[in-house]
Amino acid sequence: MKKKYLLAPGPTPVPEHVSLEMALPMVHHRTPQFSQIFAEAAEDAKYLFQTKQDVLLLAATGTGGMEACVTNLFSPGDKVLVINGGKFGERWGKIAETYGLKVVWHKVEWGQAADPMDVKATLEKEKDVKAILTQASETSTAAAHPIEELSKLTRGRDDLLLIVDGITGVGVFDLPMDKWGIDGLITGSQKALELPPGLALVALSEKAWKFAGQSKCPRFYFDLKKERKNLADKTSAYTPAVSLVIGLRRVLKDLKEEGLENVFKRHNRLARATRAAVAALGLENIAPNAPADSCTGAFVPEGIDGGKLVKSIRDDFGVTLAGGQDQWKGKIIRIAHLGYVDTFDTIIAISALEMALRKFGHKVEFGKGVAAAQEILMEGY
Amino acid sequence: MKKKYLLAPGPTPVPEHVSLEMALPMVHHRTPQFSQIFAEAAEDAKYLFQTKQDVLLLAATGTGGMEACVTNLFSPGDKVLVINGGKFGERWGKIAETYGLKVVWHKVEWGQAADPMDVKATLEKEKDVKAILTQASETSTAAAHPIEELSKLTRGRDDLLLIVDGITGVGVFDLPMDKWGIDGLITGSQKALELPPGLALVALSEKAWKFAGQSKCPRFYFDLKKERKNLADKTSAYTPAVSLVIGLRRVLKDLKEEGLENVFKRHNRLARATRAAVAALGLENIAPNAPADSCTGAFVPEGIDGGKLVKSIRDDFGVTLAGGQDQWKGKIIRIAHLGYVDTFDTIIAISALEMALRKFGHKVEFGKGVAAAQEILMEGY
Repeated sequence: MKKKYLLAPGPTPVPEHVSLEMALPMVHHRTPQFSQIFAEAAEDAKYLFQTKQDVLLLAATGTGGMEACVTNLFSPGDKVLVINGGKFGERWGKIAETYGLKVVWHKVEWGQAADPMDVKATLEKEKDVKAILTQASETSTAAAHPIEELSKLTRGRDDLLLIVDGITGVGVFDLPMDKWGIDGLITGSQKALELPPGLALVALSEKAWKFAGQSKCPRFYFDLKKERKNLADKTSAYTPAVSLVIGLRRVLKDLKEEGLENVFKRHNRLARATRAAVAALGLENIAPNAPADSCTGAFVPEGIDGGKLVKSIRDDFGVTLAGGQDQWKGKIIRIAHLGYVDTFDTIIAISALEMALRKFGHKVEFGKGVAAAQEILMEGY
Repeated sequence: MKKKYLLAPGPTPVPEHVSLEMALPMVHHRTPQFSQIFAEAAEDAKYLFQTKQDVLLLAATGTGGMEACVTNLFSPGDKVLVINGGKFGERWGKIAETYGLKVVWHKVEWGQAADPMDVKATLEKEKDVKAILTQASETSTAAAHPIEELSKLTRGRDDLLLIVDGITGVGVFDLPMDKWGIDGLITGSQKALELPPGLALVALSEKAWKFAGQSKCPRFYFDLKKERKNLADKTSAYTPAVSLVIGLRRVLKDLKEEGLENVFKRHNRLARATRAAVAALGLENIAPNAPADSCTGAFVPEGIDGGKLVKSIRDDFGVTLAGGQDQWKGKIIRIAHLGYVDTFDTIIAISALEMALRKFGHKVEFGKGVAAAQEILMEGY
């Protein structure tokens, strides 16, 4: 008998009452009953995105939403600045290159946030850049890029967009789309939205919709103008992910009831507790200067194989955390604290880490990380 | 958003795969399909009870099983010795008195186990006692009575039965019915069996079945001879609790796969960890000499209202523990560790207790109880 705990940065745990609602008998998507659900979900998604714009619901994961932004807003030959501070920054560039865009790679050291002054310098050097493509939270390095500061570079300029992959940002920390002038904002269902993967949410600013009128990239499934037109009729162009939309409607009602501000506070409290715990255990944070509230990463101690450690925490202790990718493969662990995650999930993650480190021969004082977390978690009570 | 954790000594958490199986479409109870399930559950219950006797499945909670033993084995005027060391010992006596039995109350101080020598002395003083009625684990005081020692007083005697309420004992620690010569053994679905309440399991020894042939208490619903006859036909006298029987069959398959010995080890490990944690926090164990592996009780610190503490742990922290009853009302907390409960449930209970004690103004060193638990929990990895 072993219970399983899911504390990776997506998919995140699905609340039981949401799972049960999604398990109710399937409904047909071209019915007044489902149209109402679809429209409510899309409407409440505006609250989540802090926007007056339409939020489009695509039957795809977050990467589909990223591709949709590229193919709907730009044309082959267009130049875009890609902030590349990890796997997902790299993904922006790969998508753009796939569609023939010219990518200006703005490299950021893994674990660091983009420096807006450096980005500004790149923009001044490179003429005709049409957009900055960035992550709000670079999940692979657990670092947050300074979206508000970056938005100051694009706001008020008709020729330059700020497109933000908010997949592990939206619903985790503050990303007020309209207030900051974010031009494209994307998230996925399997992160802060506490749902299974398979739904991407995308919103564009008025400025971005003008770009959409001129784009010449090929696209069929991800046609945002077509989706916007369908949304006005409370439906989607192609078959929607019915169960996920039903779940989204429920989760958004819950989030509205909790209040976005409280949702952000909750994530921040868990994040600070996890950081404090990791520090108390003497582990080095992988994103010390710009840690995201979605996920905390730490380097594993010298001599321990991070891949084996993560595997043991999962298979022996039943707790699924995440390891590292590419240059950090085997070197880090990542503990998520977004979505349907609470005080005791954080304590589970830390205590499992303590016990697994001991199992791997590392000298660990049991309870030290937990205690550091508790001191901060107590703020919630 | 607040997750809920159930760590009271029953009902205990139901494993998700069991809930899902119980939620499958209802089946009719007079069908070959259900007969097969019913027979399998009853057969595997013999493994759980460590007996060759029939284990009867009653649509009732544990108290119904206790009443069934009284009304099926004895007659008005019969004398029984009741070991009364808590709420449930008292219940044995109340049931017996309700049916006109003469009760010899063998009082045991709350939190203590019955001393077999004292029981022997009572038996020698009182003539014609027909049975010892006892708990294996007295849930209200978290103490375990010495069933093996008590069985030595009744084994080999044709005129004296040992009837054991094993409601928080069966499937938690070793109670080999046939080996020890337990004459009546009872459990309920909502404890170690990880199911919702509503099912009582009762088995009688051959010696007890002879008593059943002579009993003159009135009974209709709880007619064990009738149930035994029906069980031979793979059914029950009245409508069985269909979903619970389906769940029981699943849980017993799981327990068989894990192996009873491992099940007992698991409970013992969690129990020792919880005891160590409580001690590390400077709290006094309510059953220091005979702690049961089902549940650990501790006196709350001087000046703290235990009722309010338990309420805060439940309502503020989301963790349902149990308080005290009667003379211990407001004075104790009880942390369960039976059924579908694992390492991290124990850590949750202890860390929540630490945090709630701090909230109530008690000086607590965070992580101290957790660390003491971790040292023992590590044995499992």
